[in-house]
Amino acid sequence: MAIITIVGSGMMGSALAFPARANGHEVRLVGTHLDRDIIDNCRKCGRHPKFERDFPSGVSYYRIEEFETALEGADAVIGGVSSFGVDWFGDYVLPKIADGTPVLTVTKGLYDTADGYLYTYPELWAEKLRALGKSLPLCAVGGPCTSYELVAEDHSSVSFCGYDIEAVEKFKSLMACDYYHVSTTTDVRGIESAVALKNAYALGVALTVGLNQKKFGIDSPLHFNSQAAIFTEAVREMDMLLRMQDAHSVNNLAVGVGDLYVTVYGGRTRLVGILLGRGLTVDEALNELKGVTLESLVVAERVARAVKVKAARGEVDVKELPLLMHMDAILTEKKPADIPWDSFTYAE
Amino acid sequence: MAIITIVGSGMMGSALAFPARANGHEVRLVGTHLDRDIIDNCRKCGRHPKFERDFPSGVSYYRIEEFETALEGADAVIGGVSSFGVDWFGDYVLPKIADGTPVLTVTKGLYDTADGYLYTYPELWAEKLRALGKSLPLCAVGGPCTSYELVAEDHSSVSFCGYDIEAVEKFKSLMACDYYHVSTTTDVRGIESAVALKNAYALGVALTVGLNQKKFGIDSPLHFNSQAAIFTEAVREMDMLLRMQDAHSVNNLAVGVGDLYVTVYGGRTRLVGILLGRGLTVDEALNELKGVTLESLVVAERVARAVKVKAARGEVDVKELPLLMHMDAILTEKKPADIPWDSFTYAE
Repeated sequence: MAIITIVGSGMMGSALAFPARANGHEVRLVGTHLDRDIIDNCRKCGRHPKFERDFPSGVSYYRIEEFETALEGADAVIGGVSSFGVDWFGDYVLPKIADGTPVLTVTKGLYDTADGYLYTYPELWAEKLRALGKSLPLCAVGGPCTSYELVAEDHSSVSFCGYDIEAVEKFKSLMACDYYHVSTTTDVRGIESAVALKNAYALGVALTVGLNQKKFGIDSPLHFNSQAAIFTEAVREMDMLLRMQDAHSVNNLAVGVGDLYVTVYGGRTRLVGILLGRGLTVDEALNELKGVTLESLVVAERVARAVKVKAARGEVDVKELPLLMHMDAILTEKKPADIPWDSFTYAE
Repeated sequence: MAIITIVGSGMMGSALAFPARANGHEVRLVGTHLDRDIIDNCRKCGRHPKFERDFPSGVSYYRIEEFETALEGADAVIGGVSSFGVDWFGDYVLPKIADGTPVLTVTKGLYDTADGYLYTYPELWAEKLRALGKSLPLCAVGGPCTSYELVAEDHSSVSFCGYDIEAVEKFKSLMACDYYHVSTTTDVRGIESAVALKNAYALGVALTVGLNQKKFGIDSPLHFNSQAAIFTEAVREMDMLLRMQDAHSVNNLAVGVGDLYVTVYGGRTRLVGILLGRGLTVDEALNELKGVTLESLVVAERVARAVKVKAARGEVDVKELPLLMHMDAILTEKKPADIPWDSFTYAE
């Protein structure tokens, strides 16, 4: 049995303790400096404050000051920070991990450069490691898997990606169990782009829910035709953006689309999309949600910014991405939601 | 303004009266011999018995015996029969329509031959017309659009396809309105295959709902990870089957996937999938639903049968279509649902 150290006790990082324990591994869950209350709660009653089930026995809990202790003898490390912890993870966490230890991260997102390149986080971290002369096999997980339902042992199917296929396969052997099904690939950019993009497009689907609340009344039943129209356009635009990332494959598209399916059902992205759809500006919507910063909004803005840079060079045509451009107008120009339905139609 | 005759007063055919009337056309709704009660109800109170809104004024109602009257001066005909009326539509309806009149059908399905070819219905009808020496520009509509929500004027985005692009564009000009958004294409096999396939895969997603009711209790909350895992596999298999049909394009896949998104939410396919997931055999499930015949089950069986014929010739590998093959085992070998989760994973 192995020792697996999870850094970041947010929901997804913490949820991975369940399949790890199902396979009998020792799990050490380390909270970041933002996670003190979570770790205190886990120590007191063996449960993550957002989960409806106790952790299995065999999970121990560490504060960030105890990180080095939690790393002692670790066979593998899982990074459970959100995209707002990307730099901290690269600057503080990765340098402390022993060379050669495989690392799997759950962080979702893309980072754009001035010349319109969209980096995945494993690419960013790999650059940092190269500068440090450090060698860690970086892997990442993508695919449709919410933490609640992983904890509930609902069947979940995900993709582990990494540059070093042996490390990827090691993580699969550590984590896959009868309810956690794992594909493996070296296509890091493909998986990471696909699952970042779905966060942006989940916002688009949620817009229709709010627009319908405005049109039909706040307690009107959900309508699915308009959601599905956006979903259709999202498939088309995600396909195009994966091609723009030189990362298109049927598997990548399917993972991104499946992840979109599970993402539109809940969470804060749905909430903010509904508020925007009802007619609030983005500032009003975020104020309503007490100024929370959302990964989905960040990734939509970044992807749109990269697209516009590439479009200025004639490499893409923004007319082919009307949903992304409309979300960008909502987010950066503070425009009201007004979905350009007819721009989604095609003639061929 | 045009005269549009709709043959078949099922829900989808009838719903198309709404955008047609939004554009000011005269609409004549003709019930088949199965639709007498519907037509009687419409005549009495101006409402389809399954809709929550009255028809707009300007719609008139005909029994099948009055079909010829309803066709007099018609500028366009819409076929609103289900796939169980395909032969009747070809043998009885099409021959009565004046040569050159454009026809748009809502019928979804595929028909397999002994050598594993999957015909779309417009292909079948075109053969009948050729035999009769008759010329009708056949068009069809596919895409995510449920009748209820079209009637509710929820934004809906569909694709009209046909061999004669002028007829397709004529239908778009007749039907597109501020809430009904229409793409146009000559790729009949692509659109018709995509939207038939989604009926089969909607059954797969619904299986997980029933399996979870068995595992977690019949009133347990919905779980989405497992639905999304099936959805992901469905995208992959639909992509492959569209290629098998020589009908792959991003637009076709997006239309099929978007249509899958809206189809999993309701209707009898979902019900039968849930019953199968709970552990009933297909005969028990259909008995529970009073022996109703479902298009989704028929199309799943036909596609699987065609795949097996092609596989025997070495043209496809059934191992690449594990979800379809499992649904086929449930439907034709009467096996219990037991989703082969790990067969959906890939290594690349």
